[in-house]
Amino acid sequence: MDLQQLGKQAKDSAHTLGLLSTQEKNHLLNEMAIALEKNTTRLLKANALDLENAVENGISETMQDRLRLTKERITDMADGIRQVIQLADPIGEVEKMWKNEDGLMIGRQKVPLGVIGIIYESRPNVTTDAASLCFKTGNAVILRGGKEAFQSNQLLVDILQNALKEHHGPVNAIQFVSDTSHEVANQMMRLTDYLDVLIPRGGAGLIRRVKENATVPVIETGTGNNHIYVDKDAQLQMAVDIVVNAKASRPSVCNAAETLLIHEEVASQFLPFIEKALLDKQVQLRGDQRACAFLTEAIPATEEDWETEFLDYILAVKVVSSIEEAIAHINRYNTKHSEAIITDNYFASQKFLQEVDAAAVYVNASTRFTDGFVFGFGAEIGISTQKLHARGPMGLEELTSTKYIIYGEGQIRA
Amino acid sequence: MDLQQLGKQAKDSAHTLGLLSTQEKNHLLNEMAIALEKNTTRLLKANALDLENAVENGISETMQDRLRLTKERITDMADGIRQVIQLADPIGEVEKMWKNEDGLMIGRQKVPLGVIGIIYESRPNVTTDAASLCFKTGNAVILRGGKEAFQSNQLLVDILQNALKEHHGPVNAIQFVSDTSHEVANQMMRLTDYLDVLIPRGGAGLIRRVKENATVPVIETGTGNNHIYVDKDAQLQMAVDIVVNAKASRPSVCNAAETLLIHEEVASQFLPFIEKALLDKQVQLRGDQRACAFLTEAIPATEEDWETEFLDYILAVKVVSSIEEAIAHINRYNTKHSEAIITDNYFASQKFLQEVDAAAVYVNASTRFTDGFVFGFGAEIGISTQKLHARGPMGLEELTSTKYIIYGEGQIRA
Repeated sequence: MDLQQLGKQAKDSAHTLGLLSTQEKNHLLNEMAIALEKNTTRLLKANALDLENAVENGISETMQDRLRLTKERITDMADGIRQVIQLADPIGEVEKMWKNEDGLMIGRQKVPLGVIGIIYESRPNVTTDAASLCFKTGNAVILRGGKEAFQSNQLLVDILQNALKEHHGPVNAIQFVSDTSHEVANQMMRLTDYLDVLIPRGGAGLIRRVKENATVPVIETGTGNNHIYVDKDAQLQMAVDIVVNAKASRPSVCNAAETLLIHEEVASQFLPFIEKALLDKQVQLRGDQRACAFLTEAIPATEEDWETEFLDYILAVKVVSSIEEAIAHINRYNTKHSEAIITDNYFASQKFLQEVDAAAVYVNASTRFTDGFVFGFGAEIGISTQKLHARGPMGLEELTSTKYIIYGEGQIRA
Repeated sequence: MDLQQLGKQAKDSAHTLGLLSTQEKNHLLNEMAIALEKNTTRLLKANALDLENAVENGISETMQDRLRLTKERITDMADGIRQVIQLADPIGEVEKMWKNEDGLMIGRQKVPLGVIGIIYESRPNVTTDAASLCFKTGNAVILRGGKEAFQSNQLLVDILQNALKEHHGPVNAIQFVSDTSHEVANQMMRLTDYLDVLIPRGGAGLIRRVKENATVPVIETGTGNNHIYVDKDAQLQMAVDIVVNAKASRPSVCNAAETLLIHEEVASQFLPFIEKALLDKQVQLRGDQRACAFLTEAIPATEEDWETEFLDYILAVKVVSSIEEAIAHINRYNTKHSEAIITDNYFASQKFLQEVDAAAVYVNASTRFTDGFVFGFGAEIGISTQKLHARGPMGLEELTSTKYIIYGEGQIRA
């Protein structure tokens, strides 16, 4: 596995890809979608090997399900590529152009980032999603999937590359790292000569490893230790609906809520009410001392619980004396992903929006809406939890850089 | 020197600073400008110590000049802060806002990045420039200047902090690293818990060290191995004017040109002409074999010369057979800073603008224009040569991140 070589090929290919018109890119994407469906039988066979390994290695049924390909899921992947074809191509757009004092016409144009590295886990559909989004935005991509989906991922990339080859596209624009060891992943995190950006998609462990090791520019994604603050002026039925939705509609995703903060003035009224609704959904509550006084089934919360993204049917609960205490708790423990306040009070809503530090801050809505599709971007490569370059759901626009193009008439600088 | 402690203080202070109104920030900036001028005598004394050390350490006169403070230069620094006051505050601006399919009002708002680290060399005015730009954009800053200017920098920060203290501002929003060792700089490059971004400003050595060591998000700045390509359809007098300006008007800056590429069809006519003009400016030429055939005083260029940012009165010269060869040479050797083509040909200009990979690509103008003030941004914190977050000259806007603010009416996700 020569990552340098792979990086060099990707970089060269990025140049060619960057010069293709939108029409040419869409044509090649369409051929990739067709190739995926044509190779359904082969893909199911490769995936069966991954599933056999998963069973042997005692991987949970939930994880097996995430890993599994079916005829329908392969069609979904092809349709995913077709949706990317429908999206507007941001590349080439001149966001603004002006004449400066020297008479130079200066324009800021959207261009590809170059070569994007993606390190991800389990689900094979990430392979085609990421490849098609990068391709549409003129970026070469180096994909390094998890070992669980190795056979599926390798064949998927092989199919995409063959489609490119047959139709005279830039084959090396989609690259696959066929070594799933930690060592090679660590090398990739330091491939500064070739990678313009690295996007890790996976659990907190992967994100931490990238944060500690990477010297290439990184966009951190996906950890969401999110809070719902129920203010003293909240409509309690609305609060119950939102908390249940944010916690229990899909606990394994990053925009689920992990902690409920409740104002002391409404704690005695609200907590028994929300406990009943959450117990109906099999959610375990872990409360601080004041919260436990109003909860019958809760166990005491530890310091660690405030820091934990459970990704499970568990909710930490804390009673606060003021909105200020709620905001301070959030800014101390959150991962800057999604935060919500439930209130009827105008000033409380404005204060929360302004003072909470997160990618997405909600008033009277569930944190579960933080998503590129829901926001209307038509795609999502991940949800950034850092502040540089992109924050929150990332669509096609977030996979671009800019270039100043300057039209002169012989100007020199005085 | 406890960097962790310093980082924590900066982070806490960033929260307070982020909530100040534009008016409050401008008031405090104005007090900083006044305090600088009031302390002129103390500053000159501290600077004299730096200059004494510089003489003892045999530092060049050019470098001594960059280090030197005078009454006038201190006034210039104060005026620099007053100019920052005049600039529009980007913080709080909602770039766009829309209603999604669920009826949520989603707005993307500009917010501060948080805590910015800056590692820089020699010139003391960077201290006040960087501090005021970060302050205006609601960012706390941790400044780590070079050892040459240590006494000046330390006193400058002390004066700014005292101005903040006296006028009840967030004192810890401007922090100074009082240890100029490489070890502490390396620690700063890995201060992931507290730094949202690190901006190195300095020579190629510093940039390389940051690139190899930093795990905090970095914006690379300032190395410019820039080219001028004189096309076969160039107006030769215009080409001479631009090459002389780009090379010799200020060779020590990052937007100066380092290599001249000339189309073979005009080489015999152009090279003797440009050689004369450059020799008048004491510029040494280093040519490839074909170029040397038309130059009388040039020495042969080595492979290393194509890679070198001379920052001096030296220009590498190469004859190319086509615009394609020129573009390939540029994309291979450049540092993605500023590149120019001189041509009357429409298609050549469009091809160059599209295919050259750099922050700023010029047609018929000098590379020397790449500058935040010249571009009209009113300020410059550096010139980014990377593709993530910001590319090219960075003004106030580039010191911001975004936050999605979402107004709901009780929506939950289906």
